[in-house]
Amino acid sequence: MASTQFDVVGIGNAIVDVLCQAEESDLTALGLAKGAMTLIDSDTADRLYRSMDDVIEVSGGSAANTVAGFASLGGKAAYMGKVKDDLLGQAFAQDIQAGGVTFETPMALDGTGTAQCLIFVTPDAERTMQTYLGACVEFNPNDVDTDIIAAAKVTYLEGYLWDPEQAKKAFIKAAEAAHAAGREVSLSLSDPFCVDRHRESFLELVDNHVDILFANEEEIKSLYRADNFDAAFQKVQGHCKVAAVTRGAKGSVVVAKNEIHICDASPVEKVVDTTGAGDAYAAGFLYGYTQGLELIECARIGGLAAGEVIGHMGGRPETPLGQLIGHRI
Amino acid sequence: MASTQFDVVGIGNAIVDVLCQAEESDLTALGLAKGAMTLIDSDTADRLYRSMDDVIEVSGGSAANTVAGFASLGGKAAYMGKVKDDLLGQAFAQDIQAGGVTFETPMALDGTGTAQCLIFVTPDAERTMQTYLGACVEFNPNDVDTDIIAAAKVTYLEGYLWDPEQAKKAFIKAAEAAHAAGREVSLSLSDPFCVDRHRESFLELVDNHVDILFANEEEIKSLYRADNFDAAFQKVQGHCKVAAVTRGAKGSVVVAKNEIHICDASPVEKVVDTTGAGDAYAAGFLYGYTQGLELIECARIGGLAAGEVIGHMGGRPETPLGQLIGHRI
Repeated sequence: MASTQFDVVGIGNAIVDVLCQAEESDLTALGLAKGAMTLIDSDTADRLYRSMDDVIEVSGGSAANTVAGFASLGGKAAYMGKVKDDLLGQAFAQDIQAGGVTFETPMALDGTGTAQCLIFVTPDAERTMQTYLGACVEFNPNDVDTDIIAAAKVTYLEGYLWDPEQAKKAFIKAAEAAHAAGREVSLSLSDPFCVDRHRESFLELVDNHVDILFANEEEIKSLYRADNFDAAFQKVQGHCKVAAVTRGAKGSVVVAKNEIHICDASPVEKVVDTTGAGDAYAAGFLYGYTQGLELIECARIGGLAAGEVIGHMGGRPETPLGQLIGHRI
Repeated sequence: MASTQFDVVGIGNAIVDVLCQAEESDLTALGLAKGAMTLIDSDTADRLYRSMDDVIEVSGGSAANTVAGFASLGGKAAYMGKVKDDLLGQAFAQDIQAGGVTFETPMALDGTGTAQCLIFVTPDAERTMQTYLGACVEFNPNDVDTDIIAAAKVTYLEGYLWDPEQAKKAFIKAAEAAHAAGREVSLSLSDPFCVDRHRESFLELVDNHVDILFANEEEIKSLYRADNFDAAFQKVQGHCKVAAVTRGAKGSVVVAKNEIHICDASPVEKVVDTTGAGDAYAAGFLYGYTQGLELIECARIGGLAAGEVIGHMGGRPETPLGQLIGHRI
């Protein structure tokens, strides 16, 4: 096998997050489904944006958060995703590149603007996301750089890609290119409602294209239509090489062919905003995995990374994560 | 195999609990190791008893709590253990028999009095136990009724029996009689300090005499000298037919040869006193087990029973547990 230039390449919806604090009653007044990611159109985005006070704008997007976290841990990462060549798109590119991530997907020169995710963070630290996909829907199979895929140990795909039609095709192209080069493919299920929208094709995807599956408890329950964690846990084994399921304060469970691990959550002083918790967990887990560490150690690094991200607003680490785990590697 | 007259026969230290509420500072002042069960002599018992305010006296003892819970669920249970024929001993016998448990071990007519466990319950609902074994140490192999053992599906033994020398011999006699009759043997590890006192012989016991092992997180970590839950969890599989490990608010994990289940804790309004939580869990689990239910269902019933017991002072259920699980069976 050729040597690898990258540990991980992430492919996802390239999004700028717009965050604000909100009360439960604000969500009700705006008619938002708490905790979910909902796709919205441009008009709705404009209307919701006007309802937000004291906003913070930071680069986001699930897989982009993961590769940013991965690079912050000291790993070699690349990213593919579509922004428009506008102010937000330029900020997105600058942020991800400044973190040491290779990002070369050509920007869209016309069409709709860079995607935005309007995030309402309630006092319980839960985030409710409204996404206007904008330029993301322009991402298509031609944007998949198979040389980079072949040069990366793991190709990491976010489940949200399953929403725009062209991105879905790009996703399959990337997975096939990775396997053709003898690499591995990882999928994050992203959101229980996303799983609900695409359950049958996700089940097929997990069986046929995915080596490393990331999901949280609600997502895995949705995938297997299970009414409790254990029932979902019973079903996941054997469907992919490794499944890592996050359970919030209950930590995570890792299921491999002949191995199961139960990892406690890292202690966290105060949970401020859970945006990006799953993305950071995947970053830490894949960092350990691509370094050849034991699965329980991968889960612990994932938990540490998630613990950092939920301690502040925004889905990307504020502390260089490599420092955080310095003593463990 | 002959038909079974009993589902479970429990053997343990027959103890009356003396409970009081205490502050952390009281434990410090009295020099008590928080959360542990410590064996004390008669003089210390007298001294500590005088330090207790507003005491509640209730029948206790680990295996006795379990069979009382088991009978409360509607199962057929017997018990063996030694009390003296004194006021406390008569109260113990009356309580356990009134709950429907067969209890025929002859009372000691002379020697030290019925055992007492002085329990200090701190505001965090944790219990610190000081046990004066008294008449318990008279329990010996002659007290083991092998007809009852042979007539019970499961013989349930508490790890505390490993402290008095004669009880240890009785323990082995009971386990051998159970297996000779084609029945199963269950052990509860009782306490991390108890495990620490007897680690090597417990390991041998689990491998050679135990089919169904109960432990909490601290006990299983102590048994395998593991510094985190996952490390202990990795070691337990294969050492007995079924191991059920309780984790407090994190629920329980059941490990069988080809089966692992992760069961969430039952929701509890307020945790008042954790005395007897593990005993009640074992009662519920064994009730499901002897009814032939799936292991995850056994764990759920265990969790429900534990949830009842930790909601009030004392280690035995106040609500008939059969009502609690009525809708599940």
